Amino acid sequence: MTYRAPVRDMAFVLQEVAGLGSLAGKGDFAELTPDLIEAVLEEGAKLAGDVLAPLNKSGDHEGARLEADGVKTAKGFREAYARWVDGGWGSLAASPEFGGQGLPLALSTAMQEMWNAANMGFGLCPILSQGTVEALTAHGTEEQKRLYLPKLVSGEWTGTMNLTEPQAGSDLNALKAKAVPQGDGTYLITGTKIFITYGDHDMAENIVHLVLARLPDAPAGTKGISLFLVPKFLVHADGSLGARNDAKCVGLEEKLGIHGSPTCVMSYGDNGGAIGTLIGQENKGLACMFTMMNNARLLVGTQGVAVAERAYQHALAYATERKQGRSIGLTLAPGEMEPIVVHPDVRRMLFTMKSLTEASRSICYANAVAIDRAHHGATPAERAEGQARADLLTPIAKSFSTDIGCEVASIGVQIHGGMGFIEETGAAQYYRDARILPIYEGTNGIQAIDLVTRKLPLGNGAVVKGFIAEMRETAAKARGANHECLALIGAALDQGLDTLDKATDWMLARLKSATDDCLAGASPYLRLFGTVAGGHFLALGALVAAKAEGDAFLAARLATARFYAVQQLPLAEGLLAPATAGAETLYALDAEGLGA
Amino acid sequence: MTYRAPVRDMAFVLQEVAGLGSLAGKGDFAELTPDLIEAVLEEGAKLAGDVLAPLNKSGDHEGARLEADGVKTAKGFREAYARWVDGGWGSLAASPEFGGQGLPLALSTAMQEMWNAANMGFGLCPILSQGTVEALTAHGTEEQKRLYLPKLVSGEWTGTMNLTEPQAGSDLNALKAKAVPQGDGTYLITGTKIFITYGDHDMAENIVHLVLARLPDAPAGTKGISLFLVPKFLVHADGSLGARNDAKCVGLEEKLGIHGSPTCVMSYGDNGGAIGTLIGQENKGLACMFTMMNNARLLVGTQGVAVAERAYQHALAYATERKQGRSIGLTLAPGEMEPIVVHPDVRRMLFTMKSLTEASRSICYANAVAIDRAHHGATPAERAEGQARADLLTPIAKSFSTDIGCEVASIGVQIHGGMGFIEETGAAQYYRDARILPIYEGTNGIQAIDLVTRKLPLGNGAVVKGFIAEMRETAAKARGANHECLALIGAALDQGLDTLDKATDWMLARLKSATDDCLAGASPYLRLFGTVAGGHFLALGALVAAKAEGDAFLAARLATARFYAVQQLPLAEGLLAPATAGAETLYALDAEGLGA
Repeated sequence: MTYRAPVRDMAFVLQEVAGLGSLAGKGDFAELTPDLIEAVLEEGAKLAGDVLAPLNKSGDHEGARLEADGVKTAKGFREAYARWVDGGWGSLAASPEFGGQGLPLALSTAMQEMWNAANMGFGLCPILSQGTVEALTAHGTEEQKRLYLPKLVSGEWTGTMNLTEPQAGSDLNALKAKAVPQGDGTYLITGTKIFITYGDHDMAENIVHLVLARLPDAPAGTKGISLFLVPKFLVHADGSLGARNDAKCVGLEEKLGIHGSPTCVMSYGDNGGAIGTLIGQENKGLACMFTMMNNARLLVGTQGVAVAERAYQHALAYATERKQGRSIGLTLAPGEMEPIVVHPDVRRMLFTMKSLTEASRSICYANAVAIDRAHHGATPAERAEGQARADLLTPIAKSFSTDIGCEVASIGVQIHGGMGFIEETGAAQYYRDARILPIYEGTNGIQAIDLVTRKLPLGNGAVVKGFIAEMRETAAKARGANHECLALIGAALDQGLDTLDKATDWMLARLKSATDDCLAGASPYLRLFGTVAGGHFLALGALVAAKAEGDAFLAARLATARFYAVQQLPLAEGLLAPATAGAETLYALDAEGLGA
Repeated sequence: MTYRAPVRDMAFVLQEVAGLGSLAGKGDFAELTPDLIEAVLEEGAKLAGDVLAPLNKSGDHEGARLEADGVKTAKGFREAYARWVDGGWGSLAASPEFGGQGLPLALSTAMQEMWNAANMGFGLCPILSQGTVEALTAHGTEEQKRLYLPKLVSGEWTGTMNLTEPQAGSDLNALKAKAVPQGDGTYLITGTKIFITYGDHDMAENIVHLVLARLPDAPAGTKGISLFLVPKFLVHADGSLGARNDAKCVGLEEKLGIHGSPTCVMSYGDNGGAIGTLIGQENKGLACMFTMMNNARLLVGTQGVAVAERAYQHALAYATERKQGRSIGLTLAPGEMEPIVVHPDVRRMLFTMKSLTEASRSICYANAVAIDRAHHGATPAERAEGQARADLLTPIAKSFSTDIGCEVASIGVQIHGGMGFIEETGAAQYYRDARILPIYEGTNGIQAIDLVTRKLPLGNGAVVKGFIAEMRETAAKARGANHECLALIGAALDQGLDTLDKATDWMLARLKSATDDCLAGASPYLRLFGTVAGGHFLALGALVAAKAEGDAFLAARLATARFYAVQQLPLAEGLLAPATAGAETLYALDAEGLGA
């Protein structure tokens, strides 16, 4: 079972749902047309389906291994990566100044979905490189940009992000890595970093590590952290490669999933210190790293969409082939059976997979388009609006989509029955791979805290209220369309919005006075928000789909939006009480009591 | 991190919540006292914690392997099993007539929870043996009982269940294995069976396979299936072992989890035919097998409880040790951190794990006590009531508890952050192991169909209505107790019962006229039912707990019931619409449209 990128879905969501249409054909995207978008998607779909997807299972099985001269990726990864670089896929959304193609981040997000759906172990590498490009573009010196960006943009070199240390995971206060200035503009970096994705590998000639470390006289806590660029091979002023730097992978983690992707323990400075240069200002490293992490959060959300789509395609194929039982009232000869897709419960599972995948895809793409508006909007107001919308959506895109990725992959296993538990079938790999997504790039719990404590207060609540108002318009349009199915969708969306309104008002009223109460409900609130936002985007698509008759693709969009309205949106109501229950219940026991 | 069986929780739920107290000390259980129950639990807890739990990770890592002379289990399993047999753990609930101890199934269910929490790969073996004992007790000839039951009861021999064939999973119409009568009372069995748990292994001197097969002249479909007893080694009339039978394991599945447990492809009759004897009547094999499967469903539900409890203990230990960040308003020196259990979102996750585990444990134990009432009740009315309650609860115990097992194991991974994704940590194993539970012994979707189409109609709806009325009484007691926390719990339960009432009435009204509509909502209905039933049992425990003050254990029960009332029961409301949405939405697309 291979992967076929859902090109028409992607194009539809980009243009009709996420709003890329409003940016295309003007300003920075003057040359962007629907035809170009589809052509890019089609071309990428070939690479994803023909080259990356066939390496997914073998990459999982073989994994990466650490040898004396460094990390070796699974068979075929190196060649596949070369083809990916040759195709120019690394440079899609990067600035033309450094060899990029200047296409929207939204389009590149769709491409990242493809790479990761085809092969998540492979697709992680470009995500890290893209983050490195973004951090350097925003905070690098001219020299750093000149030396590193063109190669990172092309994909000839790859990037990594080095935050975590054994004692410092989500809380970077405890970070210990050291950076000592050498007086020549360089620093000697020492320390150990863990969980470094593609920290070493054999697919690119150089690797650019972005490393958080402390200067000798740095203040304690997060205000004393700086960001450094530490290449695997030093780079001469003419761009040629010099000596091997004192940075190496000393161990690989044995993981639940994404075995194709090496997760490295990186040791810096075993022989005196790795040579690095400062990115941005001293002690302002976290801000630079957050530039990198912000889009990475969206891309991790997109990985959730990717694994959900892959699991869905796999399960749908099985459900239409595997024969067991028969539907009620059907007369078949004894022993004759129908494919399991005829059974209501199997259909419910398939529709659940499909509708949740579409909902999370819409949220991620809309988030990407908002970032594009923030950078390329025609007016300052449009750019500010785009930034605010992106800020609001990012934690939702990350958490909701990655939870969906896990849930959909789990349903995919279930549809396969006993075969789903057998590794050879492939469904189990998605279930294993997906499980990292709610964890890395800031756990989903941390995203929920971000949504509630930092994003809801934006513009004194105006940003979230503006988005809710926009969703209300969608509901009103659907209800007023004089179309039975749209009316049902609009009513369900309005009901979901009533719930979201209540929960949001509750949060806004307590953010300052009772923060713990807000934190206690942050995760169910985020799920509630994502559920309703997904309904909004599916309704937007349904409004377009309802205009055309006789098109199977659009009929499927409409039916899926209806399923979501009937089966998923009502779940928001059940989340209101948990979101607004406050913290008291959580502290009725001390830690010891929890074990009693 | 080892496993410590929650003995006090188990004893409390057995006696105060599930109703074992009402059976103990009289009739068949005249000698059963609270002290005896605790003593049995304490003794089992030692074996589970000291012997089985330490083999859990190594068993996962090493797995079972197929060698020339059969399947070898992982290091230590053979010795651990011998200790388990020596301890008399196999005979707990079996009839004294065959060497059993005649203790309640409910107590043996708690013990099964222990074995499976300690080591699910190990714990599966006794579950299959217990099912074999039950099928033989109910349907075996006197000779079969005499020859096989004592050894199966003691655990010296183990049992297997052989239903599935490559082409026939849940739908046994398609079953092909053949049984040819030899005229001497024996049959020659030929055919291939897959997914046979502990189909071969080195822990017992003989294995008793129960095999479904067709007689030469059998009708097509499920009415032509008979059940046969096929021992690995033939058994002489004096009980001694004879020749090796023509039944062997020809392959092991490579699975997502429960690696310690061999999942065999069994080949019967490669050399002419395996010798077997008929169990029960010709062509009535399914009824016999269902005897075996019915309690197995409860025990699989109990495995869900087990993995949830294990994952909770693991996560709680981590959350109280791992330091990251600090709680709001606390003044700590820079770099100083608190254990993550202080954070509201981590507490929410821990309480969710704990309360869902307690809810599902209560449902499973109550199911077991109902089966005990069915067999040992003082009056025919009590026995009939017990049977009806058991019939109703079994699909809920199986599905709800196994879904909970998966969800709680997944939350456990999440609490560990990045470490959760590393296999060495151990949390990932529970996530992998748990995933089989919603699949085997009848998928959870099939359980939901069973609940709606076969259990709701029992007594024309009187059985389900009777249980709802009992739950209403619990809510009324809690509301009337003049106790703030109980009042809150009672109100939440009543609200959940309102929802369950609506959904149940909807189902009962449509069962005959619109079965597809009921099937379409069966899974969300089952989840809704389980959610409310869990709230009822936690409230029952809270009513007892509220009477005692100053007892940390009882305070924890009360706090957990309150959390469940506030955070879990309200989710039932969100499930009403999906449960009662009907089938139309599911058939708006044909199978092709689902891929559009």
